[in-house]
Amino acid sequence: MRAALSSVRSVPIADADALDEIYARALLGSVAEPGDGFLGRAIDVIGAVGAATLLLESASPVDLVEALTNAGGSADLREAESGLGRWSPRLDLGAFGRALEQAARVGARLILPNDAAWPAGVDELGIHAPLGLWIRGREHALDGSSASISLVGARAATGYGEHVTMEASAGLVDRGFTVVSGGAYGIDGMAHRSALASGGTTVAFLAGGVDRFYPMGHEGLLSRIAETGAVVSELPCGAAPTKWRFLQRNRLIAAASEATVVLEAGYRSGSLNTAGHAAALGRPLGAVPGPVTSPASAGCHRLLREYDAICVTDAEQMAELVGGGPRSAASERRSPGSVSESADRGDRGDRGARGAAASPETVRVLDALSTRSPRELSDIARRCGMTPSAVMGVLGGLEAVGHVKRHPFGWLRVARS
Amino acid sequence: MRAALSSVRSVPIADADALDEIYARALLGSVAEPGDGFLGRAIDVIGAVGAATLLLESASPVDLVEALTNAGGSADLREAESGLGRWSPRLDLGAFGRALEQAARVGARLILPNDAAWPAGVDELGIHAPLGLWIRGREHALDGSSASISLVGARAATGYGEHVTMEASAGLVDRGFTVVSGGAYGIDGMAHRSALASGGTTVAFLAGGVDRFYPMGHEGLLSRIAETGAVVSELPCGAAPTKWRFLQRNRLIAAASEATVVLEAGYRSGSLNTAGHAAALGRPLGAVPGPVTSPASAGCHRLLREYDAICVTDAEQMAELVGGGPRSAASERRSPGSVSESADRGDRGDRGARGAAASPETVRVLDALSTRSPRELSDIARRCGMTPSAVMGVLGGLEAVGHVKRHPFGWLRVARS
Repeated sequence: MRAALSSVRSVPIADADALDEIYARALLGSVAEPGDGFLGRAIDVIGAVGAATLLLESASPVDLVEALTNAGGSADLREAESGLGRWSPRLDLGAFGRALEQAARVGARLILPNDAAWPAGVDELGIHAPLGLWIRGREHALDGSSASISLVGARAATGYGEHVTMEASAGLVDRGFTVVSGGAYGIDGMAHRSALASGGTTVAFLAGGVDRFYPMGHEGLLSRIAETGAVVSELPCGAAPTKWRFLQRNRLIAAASEATVVLEAGYRSGSLNTAGHAAALGRPLGAVPGPVTSPASAGCHRLLREYDAICVTDAEQMAELVGGGPRSAASERRSPGSVSESADRGDRGDRGARGAAASPETVRVLDALSTRSPRELSDIARRCGMTPSAVMGVLGGLEAVGHVKRHPFGWLRVARS
Repeated sequence: MRAALSSVRSVPIADADALDEIYARALLGSVAEPGDGFLGRAIDVIGAVGAATLLLESASPVDLVEALTNAGGSADLREAESGLGRWSPRLDLGAFGRALEQAARVGARLILPNDAAWPAGVDELGIHAPLGLWIRGREHALDGSSASISLVGARAATGYGEHVTMEASAGLVDRGFTVVSGGAYGIDGMAHRSALASGGTTVAFLAGGVDRFYPMGHEGLLSRIAETGAVVSELPCGAAPTKWRFLQRNRLIAAASEATVVLEAGYRSGSLNTAGHAAALGRPLGAVPGPVTSPASAGCHRLLREYDAICVTDAEQMAELVGGGPRSAASERRSPGSVSESADRGDRGDRGARGAAASPETVRVLDALSTRSPRELSDIARRCGMTPSAVMGVLGGLEAVGHVKRHPFGWLRVARS
């Protein structure tokens, strides 16, 4: 294999011993579509070099089944036929070499599963994990040294959605988060832009090769992302973004970050696909609500309603999604009773003395007092329907904090300005 | 007792045999604050007539404990002292008679727990259930013959909140619901007004006597409500609305309706108190999201985030809260995977052929086709990374629905206008 690839040695390789592994994964990544589960299983059994060698040697399906079973795995002939039937027609060493040269030209490097820079979270994709990740920019942007969160949403964002995204991304950067997104117009772009403006690290996952920034209108933005953060793809240089690759790219956004937040999304937005991946991986999933009159928020409401997403309204609540705080806060929902005493429906302007923590007895005694007419204990007790001794206990506490005062003819409530 | 009350026989009584029960509950309701749990327990044991008789006979706490224990209940002296200490100072037969006369004057009638018109749901309040309900308007408005739902929210509503409430209330009336609320300014008022405008039945629960409509600015609205629906309170005529009574009134709104929806509410809005009662009673609780930039929606977002309220965005979803449909829809949340294929992040304007139901294979084959350049099967297979036979299967299906067509030189995708 090395001989066949000798022309492309210009691609930067960090570790000479890993040469074969790198080339093998790069080659397999050029023939298989993202998330090819049978290839993932084959690599688990015979390794990437083994799989690539069989492919280069034009192995038959029988050879492949034999190689897999000899190595302790299993495969039936039909899936071996199907696999080789998918990969072999795409094997084109000339094109592969040009893709590697292009990668070298744009400064893209391929990182592999056990590299220190590898985002550990994507390994949870199992046999659907990427074979490697092509990175332009800072290789270690997703090495786990800082918390990461995905901010995703519709391309057709509204001013509201962009405003909330801007605040959220800046607030998350302030809290030390790396902001992950998909580089698209709308919410994604704003998430990246705001993170950059706040001096933070941001990472964009693309659905095509990192040599050509997509969408074209974000070429400048993606270039700036690569200066301090990273632009990442599992596809080789030259690969065009297809709908299928966008869907597969979404699984990487969800898997490479610790939590995913959908900020604005239509009812059928692709962001729901990313959200679905996050949920399937057991990652915390947040959704930002918006006006129910806005179709651009319908997808977020759907996530809240149907997919048990957590309602998040600002960067602080998004940050809580990551780590122990968030999940437990959401699952140990408070007992509904605890909200009762904070009610204030009958408030007539005297909030000051009647804070959220007021006990039922306090509420009733204050109800029975006037700011102008002093009232005797028995009168207050009758008015609030409590015993005089219970009223006296409450009055003592309220007097201590200055909410009521004694008067020659009884008790007065202290007016709050 | 009857002798003492002979002056107030003018109050309309439906059933002469139930006279004592009605007078007893009316009297007890005039001395106890709403939700007095000890009185509720006493009535459970010795009946309302028994409790009222003891009160009228100036029974001592020892007498009360004895009466309760003799009847198979239990009570300690301290709670008996406290109970009588609360009620006795308020016993004023003259005032009671005037309250009944006032009720007769405004056409208010008292309905009791076992009446056909009684809203069965309030019985779930147990010992905190109301002793009776004073009703102005159509007595049977809450008799369970039609589904009921509470629409509540902040007095300080925004145009957004009022708009959503208007649509929701009208939509629920269209679906046969009785709309319950609190008669307040803002969301409550809009819920009532829109229900009336749609020719529906609406019920307002007040925190004071039904002889004086509160707030004053809603006198006209509450009068109109009483024409076709009902204005209801557990307090006797003449009773002023106090903060405590607003909080207790909220439990009736939650208990008398099958589900509660909060449409707009600040972070500490009294509507959260109603929501808390609904949740405590195990009733479905909905919250309408709004812009996270609007403090008037902060309470709704809090309900979604902390109290497991169900996100509802229109009348249809609110209607689903009631009956089997709603709860199960929310608890059997769909598997996140099911959302995946509806994604469309990489869509480039050809939604038509790529509906939400497209399989992964369909997506990939369509990705590999062009609307202008016909492509051969092997070319398509290589482009989408599938075997030719798998591609052919997909093409057959797409041809049948007119999404692709054959061409002398291969296959074309059909352009969707």
